[in-house]
Amino acid sequence: MKGMIATVCEFNDPQLRERAVEAARGDAPFDVLIAGGTLVDMVTGELRRADIGLVGPLIASVHEAGSRADAAETVDAGGAFVSPGLIDTHMHVESSMVTPANYAAAVLPRGVTTIVWDPHEFGNVYGVDGVRWAVEAKKKLPLRAVMLAPSSVPSAPGLEMAGADFDADVIEEMLLWPEIGGLAEMMNMRGVIERDPRMTDIVQAALTSEKLICGHARSLAGGDLQAFMTAGVTSDHELVSGGDLLAKLRAGLTIELRGSHDHLLPEFVEALNKLGHLPQTVTLCTDDVFPDDLYHQGGLDDVVRRLVRYGMKPEWALQAATFNASRRIGRADLGLIAAGRRGDIVLFEDLTDFRVREVFVSGRRVAKGGNMVVELTAADPMPLRDSVKLQPLREEDFRLRAEGRKVRLATIDQPRFTCWGQTDADVVDGYVVPPEGTALIAVTHRHGRADSRTRLGFLRGWGAWRGAFATTVSHDSHNLAVFGGNPRDMAAAANAVIEAGGGLAVASAGKVDAILPLPLAGLVSEAGLKEVSEGFSAIRAAVDRIVDWQPPYLVFKACFGATLACNAGPHQTDRGIADATTGRLLECPILETL
Amino acid sequence: MKGMIATVCEFNDPQLRERAVEAARGDAPFDVLIAGGTLVDMVTGELRRADIGLVGPLIASVHEAGSRADAAETVDAGGAFVSPGLIDTHMHVESSMVTPANYAAAVLPRGVTTIVWDPHEFGNVYGVDGVRWAVEAKKKLPLRAVMLAPSSVPSAPGLEMAGADFDADVIEEMLLWPEIGGLAEMMNMRGVIERDPRMTDIVQAALTSEKLICGHARSLAGGDLQAFMTAGVTSDHELVSGGDLLAKLRAGLTIELRGSHDHLLPEFVEALNKLGHLPQTVTLCTDDVFPDDLYHQGGLDDVVRRLVRYGMKPEWALQAATFNASRRIGRADLGLIAAGRRGDIVLFEDLTDFRVREVFVSGRRVAKGGNMVVELTAADPMPLRDSVKLQPLREEDFRLRAEGRKVRLATIDQPRFTCWGQTDADVVDGYVVPPEGTALIAVTHRHGRADSRTRLGFLRGWGAWRGAFATTVSHDSHNLAVFGGNPRDMAAAANAVIEAGGGLAVASAGKVDAILPLPLAGLVSEAGLKEVSEGFSAIRAAVDRIVDWQPPYLVFKACFGATLACNAGPHQTDRGIADATTGRLLECPILETL
Repeated sequence: MKGMIATVCEFNDPQLRERAVEAARGDAPFDVLIAGGTLVDMVTGELRRADIGLVGPLIASVHEAGSRADAAETVDAGGAFVSPGLIDTHMHVESSMVTPANYAAAVLPRGVTTIVWDPHEFGNVYGVDGVRWAVEAKKKLPLRAVMLAPSSVPSAPGLEMAGADFDADVIEEMLLWPEIGGLAEMMNMRGVIERDPRMTDIVQAALTSEKLICGHARSLAGGDLQAFMTAGVTSDHELVSGGDLLAKLRAGLTIELRGSHDHLLPEFVEALNKLGHLPQTVTLCTDDVFPDDLYHQGGLDDVVRRLVRYGMKPEWALQAATFNASRRIGRADLGLIAAGRRGDIVLFEDLTDFRVREVFVSGRRVAKGGNMVVELTAADPMPLRDSVKLQPLREEDFRLRAEGRKVRLATIDQPRFTCWGQTDADVVDGYVVPPEGTALIAVTHRHGRADSRTRLGFLRGWGAWRGAFATTVSHDSHNLAVFGGNPRDMAAAANAVIEAGGGLAVASAGKVDAILPLPLAGLVSEAGLKEVSEGFSAIRAAVDRIVDWQPPYLVFKACFGATLACNAGPHQTDRGIADATTGRLLECPILETL
Repeated sequence: MKGMIATVCEFNDPQLRERAVEAARGDAPFDVLIAGGTLVDMVTGELRRADIGLVGPLIASVHEAGSRADAAETVDAGGAFVSPGLIDTHMHVESSMVTPANYAAAVLPRGVTTIVWDPHEFGNVYGVDGVRWAVEAKKKLPLRAVMLAPSSVPSAPGLEMAGADFDADVIEEMLLWPEIGGLAEMMNMRGVIERDPRMTDIVQAALTSEKLICGHARSLAGGDLQAFMTAGVTSDHELVSGGDLLAKLRAGLTIELRGSHDHLLPEFVEALNKLGHLPQTVTLCTDDVFPDDLYHQGGLDDVVRRLVRYGMKPEWALQAATFNASRRIGRADLGLIAAGRRGDIVLFEDLTDFRVREVFVSGRRVAKGGNMVVELTAADPMPLRDSVKLQPLREEDFRLRAEGRKVRLATIDQPRFTCWGQTDADVVDGYVVPPEGTALIAVTHRHGRADSRTRLGFLRGWGAWRGAFATTVSHDSHNLAVFGGNPRDMAAAANAVIEAGGGLAVASAGKVDAILPLPLAGLVSEAGLKEVSEGFSAIRAAVDRIVDWQPPYLVFKACFGATLACNAGPHQTDRGIADATTGRLLECPILETL
């Protein structure tokens, strides 16, 4: 892949290589010697004793245990398992609601040294500037990030207004940046398969760039899957079963095995164990991790841990997370503990819990005993502030005006896999009375690129809401979305979020119960992960009190995807009720006056 | 790897993708449908029924057997095993003594669709022009060639004169060519490990290019191997045992498992079988194949065949020769039969003999039933003519003048692993009388870049020669080398070669017994492979009559490597007896007059 080997000058510096070769020969000491550990060999699958000599960012030597002792510093790896740093092949930092620096502080001590980051959420709010901000932010961090150009801004053009609009020209420009490793998940599957001109041009721009073209191939099979791949897409993380995994391996896709749907992992493990070997096209990813999950469970390390818990050999899980990943992203400097590669190394205490003793990035110790030991430099967050371009809303905004006495309404039925419904409603004093069994959803454009009249919809199958939840994290356009049972609480929650410059809020009985301010792009907090995790947990708890969830579909997470208009079925957006399959857009749910 | 995906415009052409996506969806017919075969799945390792739809150069669809029948042409793959085209990851076309077009005609019908060609021999004779000629020649052929920049021209700078001299500036320039995929085997191992400035600069140029850096790590282990890799080298084909294979896999090198040393293959197979899986870093290569071997046994297909014969699972051998190879060379369009990749496809009749039914390259049928079905366009050979810049030699040139009655001579003892020796010799009529037990070696500079006085040496352990053998194929400088027992036959053989403009000749009793003209660069014939094979067989037979070989080291092949001055120990070159280890160069073997 073009330009994918990050051989920054420093890594190929002749003086560095000189020093490293001398040290490897035995004619000079190492900078760091990692001695006494058991190396997890990602090529042979062996667990074997070996010591590792580092010189600057380079692995200079991997040699017989105890054969060398000359080093400026010796790290005792006794009892530890030594692995390359973990590589997360598909993720969005923004989903954890913390800054890149705070995300790095969370995952580096857990052994994640590289992420493949699609800054899709920042892109949807701030456009190219948001992507550029993410690129600049990651440059300051020891957490290596391969950046991808968001492919779907907005996810459903014409049916929603995001903060920006990425057509093929914009994508083409981003793909020229050296930091951009490819095109991020093509979510608009039907657009690709049916050769919608916009999506076709975007994929062609990526083909021409000769960079990665990543996929989102949810439920694709048969001719659709083949067409999606023939267009140019080469990966998928949207697996729905062990059979789907096998089918997509056979198809030749690179798999980004995702941790976020835990219930699927056991069948993935079973399918791979039955195959008898780990295909080199299996990699691991997190995709989206909520802040409390990140804080308590971890990032990609937790995907490794759970796969092993469900019966995968630890060598396989680590190979998927390291060497296989490095090959997918075309990084010949990563993924193996081998001379001439980068010193991205993790010392695990064990291969069951994967507790981390120490972490090295480019030969430098960055974390020890679960804590960072280097300072992290955060990017200036100022450009991400004031993204919520809204005045306070009124109760009135959450009521639907209507003529006459009775109206027929279009409804959005069932969370997750939505479908169109209809119901009749009374009109009292010029307003629709929400019918029994419905909840309200309100979406308000907050980017200043269109009118910000709130669009209202009626949800069915979402339970009875005893309050309201408002959020500016609202995939993928991240407009202000409010869910609730009554206009008063909806206005209270919405205004709390607007006042905070973005975030999540829960209100009941006219009062705000919980607020998590996310003033950066309306997506992210400047606070540390612990604080954000606690804030998020408080939101979860507060929401739990006002609605009775019914897993697996009616869950808190469903609120964040209820506006994801690229998916099949009706979805409320800032423009109305959108249906990507039919192209239908209903600005107001009133179908007729009865 | 930068620029390694050969996405020529045609391959990414929007109209092509449009047509392919339509066909994949089922809305348009395929150009070609390969139906009824058993696909060898390089990812899962399964043998499974599947049909393949091609559109132009693209694989548009891999689908359920029998599910589609709409195609302009249907290929009956009933009973056949369908595999991606074979990829030879390290080779020199010149070693087969035929033109690139004739090499292509030999291997394409055998299922080899891609070669990684180091035009090292043309480079040593014609310099950059020779490499350029090879690049242009390959462009005309359906045999895909990833070209590498020869790293070692000459192999022992200062100790021999080749037809050119590639310093880092020359290498840097070649690495800028889009057709050049990397730096070819770094043969000067000690130069790399000991940081000889010339070799260091060459490796640095390749590091900067971010292209492949290929190795030749013969017998390297321990600190030397680590130093070689730390310098930047990432592959090896010079394995000497199963243990060496395992050690180099553990070290993290990509292995180009070589077919040319057949006796080693069984232990390679045993080592890999014991490991229990095929590491993704194992690829296959031929390196050098003599014309008769190529004609009778084949190219990379024969490496696959023999590995399977020695106990490797056919799926493994093919995976090494296809998918693993494609990943090594960074070609995401090759190596798998999957939608969106290139239609390089082989139909094997079986997985034991690997007889080939049909071969497709970029979706086009190029061979059927062992024969080419498309015309091959040969490059103009004129630029490679007249490379032997020598007048006829005289018997006198093969005699060593000396003063006095007796002299002490330095000798080159033992073929292959040479060492210095000494012996005393009589001087009669002003000439040294070759002592009992010695054979003569004479090397004459033939490139017109230095004086062409013949340098003589005395070989011991090379048997008693009843005639002479002359060759302009003489690694790596390819000067005129003559081996023999007497000056008369040596002059006869040499002059036959000079008159032919290069080639191989055998003489005895003052007469030429056999001649194989190789007028292109003194390395290659314009004749077809069959004719060259027969000529080469005749040379073999003629040489067999004049010398009694003692395998494994004293064999015909040893004549071609006797001048390979980069190897350890004394070697005769056009400058004298050279020793790369010590840097010693003895123009004349007379040490002293006694």
